[in-house]
Amino acid sequence: MKNRKLLMIPGPVEFTPEVLAAMGLPTTSHLAPNFVEVFGQALDRLKEVFLFPDGQPFIVAGSGTLAMEMAAANLIEPGDRALVLITGYFSDRYVAILERCGAQVTALQPPAIGDTPPLEAVEAALAQGDYKLMTITHVDTSTAVLSDVRTLAELGRRYGALVVVDGVCSVGGEELRPQEWGVDLVLSASQKALGVPPGLAIVVAGPRAMEAFRKRKTPVPNYYADWTNWLPIMESYQARKGAYFGTPPVNLIWALNVSLEQILEEGLEARFARHRRLSDAFKAGMAALGLAQVPVSLEKAAHTLTNLYYPEGVDARMLPHVRDAGVIVATGRHPALGERYFRVGHMGAVTSADILVAVGAIEYGLRKMNYPFEPGAGLAAAQRVLLG
Amino acid sequence: MKNRKLLMIPGPVEFTPEVLAAMGLPTTSHLAPNFVEVFGQALDRLKEVFLFPDGQPFIVAGSGTLAMEMAAANLIEPGDRALVLITGYFSDRYVAILERCGAQVTALQPPAIGDTPPLEAVEAALAQGDYKLMTITHVDTSTAVLSDVRTLAELGRRYGALVVVDGVCSVGGEELRPQEWGVDLVLSASQKALGVPPGLAIVVAGPRAMEAFRKRKTPVPNYYADWTNWLPIMESYQARKGAYFGTPPVNLIWALNVSLEQILEEGLEARFARHRRLSDAFKAGMAALGLAQVPVSLEKAAHTLTNLYYPEGVDARMLPHVRDAGVIVATGRHPALGERYFRVGHMGAVTSADILVAVGAIEYGLRKMNYPFEPGAGLAAAQRVLLG
Repeated sequence: MKNRKLLMIPGPVEFTPEVLAAMGLPTTSHLAPNFVEVFGQALDRLKEVFLFPDGQPFIVAGSGTLAMEMAAANLIEPGDRALVLITGYFSDRYVAILERCGAQVTALQPPAIGDTPPLEAVEAALAQGDYKLMTITHVDTSTAVLSDVRTLAELGRRYGALVVVDGVCSVGGEELRPQEWGVDLVLSASQKALGVPPGLAIVVAGPRAMEAFRKRKTPVPNYYADWTNWLPIMESYQARKGAYFGTPPVNLIWALNVSLEQILEEGLEARFARHRRLSDAFKAGMAALGLAQVPVSLEKAAHTLTNLYYPEGVDARMLPHVRDAGVIVATGRHPALGERYFRVGHMGAVTSADILVAVGAIEYGLRKMNYPFEPGAGLAAAQRVLLG
Repeated sequence: MKNRKLLMIPGPVEFTPEVLAAMGLPTTSHLAPNFVEVFGQALDRLKEVFLFPDGQPFIVAGSGTLAMEMAAANLIEPGDRALVLITGYFSDRYVAILERCGAQVTALQPPAIGDTPPLEAVEAALAQGDYKLMTITHVDTSTAVLSDVRTLAELGRRYGALVVVDGVCSVGGEELRPQEWGVDLVLSASQKALGVPPGLAIVVAGPRAMEAFRKRKTPVPNYYADWTNWLPIMESYQARKGAYFGTPPVNLIWALNVSLEQILEEGLEARFARHRRLSDAFKAGMAALGLAQVPVSLEKAAHTLTNLYYPEGVDARMLPHVRDAGVIVATGRHPALGERYFRVGHMGAVTSADILVAVGAIEYGLRKMNYPFEPGAGLAAAQRVLLG
C-alpha cells in the first residue's frame, strides 16, 4: 500500500514532479549566470501568469502574510484611510496589518459569514471616504467566498482608491485579470494555485501603486518589506544582472520558474476553465450528498477550494476517516464557525482523478460517521460533470 | 566532464545529498502529524545546535535580514538606545534596521576596515549610554572579521544591555556558546553553516530577551516579524501540536531538521574544530601564495570564510578563471573596498577535498592573470595543515 496521502487542503497543495525535482537541485549561487537567468525568467513569467504585463513583480522569501504586509507597508503612510472588504479571516487580518502600518481602517462587513459586503455599501463607503486604498480578498480561504474583483475594482478606481487584491488563494487558478480590470496590486504566495512549496511572498504592483510608493513622504516602516530595498534587485534580475539585498531562496525560485512555465504551457484560459470544471464537479458531488457550502451562493463560491458544513450528525471526527481513505482535507479556519465545517482545496496540479478520490474518501468518512446516503451518489454526480 | 561547479561562496554553500533530498520530498500539510513532529524536532534541535538550551527558537520564512529585523522590532521600543559594533556592511545594515524600528543608535566604528571597535571604546560607550541592547556581528560576511563575542557579551551584560548576536555567517561553524557566554539572542539564516538552502530566518531568544519583549508597552511595529503572532505557533509545535499563523515553508523546515540532525551527529565541538582546521589550511595556502586577508589579524579572522585582497597586478578578472577551474567564489561586498578583494566560503558540509580544489582553482586563476608564484605552493601549504 502506498503510504502517501493525497493532499487536498487549501495550500500547500500537490505539486508536479518537475517542481519537486527543482526543489532538490543542488543550490547554485544567487549570482551565478544560470540562476540570474532563472530568476529573471520567473519575474517575467509572473507578469504573464498574473495577466499584469505592466506590473512590477516582487519575489521575496516569506509567507502570504508578508506579501499582505508588503503591499500595506509600501502604500500606506500614517493617517491614510483604507477600506477593507471583509469576507473572512484573511480580510480580518488585513485590518490588523493596515492598522499596524498606521492606516485608519474601515472594515466593511458582509451581512452574514459566507457573503460579501453589498456593492451599494461599498460604493457608499467609497463616496464618503477619500480612501487611499481598498483591499479585496479574491478568495478568502477561511470561507471560500469569492469576491467580484472586476466590479469592485471598477468602483474603487472610480473613487480614486488604489485597488489591492489578495490573490493568495486565487492567482493561477481563479479567473483574475488585473490589468484589464484596473487592479493596482495583486499579492499571492507560492503554495496554492501557483504550484510551488511554501516560502515565497509574491507581489505584482501596477503603475499607480508604484507611483504612490515613489511619492511617499515618510519611510516605509518595515525594513525587510521595503520596496526601496527590493525594487533595484528585481529590476536588476529582470535585466538579467545579479544583485544583492537579501539572499534569495534559490531552490524555491528555481521551482517557481518551473511551475510558471508549466502554467503558461497549459495556458491561463485553459487553467481557469480546468479549475472551474473540477470545482463544479466536486461541488456537484458534495451537493448530491446533501452537504451545504459556507458561501451563500454558487456565484460567491471560489473554484480553488470548497468549504462545507458538516451535515446533521457529523462532525470533525469524520476527518481521520477521510484520511484513512487516503485524502487529507483541512479543518475550519474561521473563528465564528469553529469546528462546524471543513475545507477541501482543489487547485494547482489537481486532476479529475484527484476529485474522484476526494469525493470517494469523503463518502467513506460519512459512512463511518453513520450519515445516511446512497453510496456512490457523490461520485456519480461529480463524474456527470467531469464527463460533460 | 561534470558540469557542476563547487560552490565556495559565503552562502548559499554546498549542501549534503540528504538535505537536498528532503527539499524535494512531496510537500505535506503543515498540520500533518509527521510534519508536526519534524517541525517540533527542528525547534528542539535548534536549541542544541545553538548551544542555547534556555532559548526560545523561532523559524520563519525569510532571509537573514528578516531575522535581524525580528530581533530589533521585538526588543526595541521608540526612543530606546542601541549600540551597534561595526565590523562591516552587515553591522552597518543593523544601524539602518534599528533606526527604522525607532531606536536611537550609536554606531561604534573600528579603527580600520578589517578591525573591530576597541574594547575600551565599547566599555566607555556602555558606561555612558544606558543602552537597551547592543548588537555584535559575530562574523561580518563583508569583511570576514570575527568578533570576540565572549568578552563583548560579558561587557554588555555588566552594563545591562541585551546582547544580540548576528550569527548569520557563524552559527553551526564558528565557536559560539550563547548561554555560557551570557548572550541574549542569536539570529541566523539557513544557507550558511546551518547547511540548508536559503529561505529561513532563524532566531533563538534567551529568557532576558523574551522578558523584554513581554514587558513592551508599545505594539511591535511589524506584523510579520511580531513574536506576538509567532510565539504561540513555535510553542505549539514544540509541544508537538499543529498551529497556524502563516503557512510554514514545509520543505525547507524538513531539510533543516535533516541538517540539524547531521550537525548533532557530527557534534558541535568536532564541527567547530573541523571549521577551524579547514580554515587554517585554506588561509595557509593563501598566505603561501602571498595573498593578504581583509581582517587585520588571524585572531580577528573568521573560520567560516576567508576574504582576500587581490595581489599586485591581479583583479576581479581572475574570478572567471577560478570558475573555469571548477570553483565559484564571491566578489566583494563592502562598499569601501569595492572590487579590491574576493571572498571564499568554507562552512557547512565543506571537506578537506573542497579546500584543496579551491586552492588549486585560485592558483589556476592567479596563473591566468600572470601573477608570479611557484605552482603548487598554496596547495602544499594547505596540505601541510590538513595532514597536521
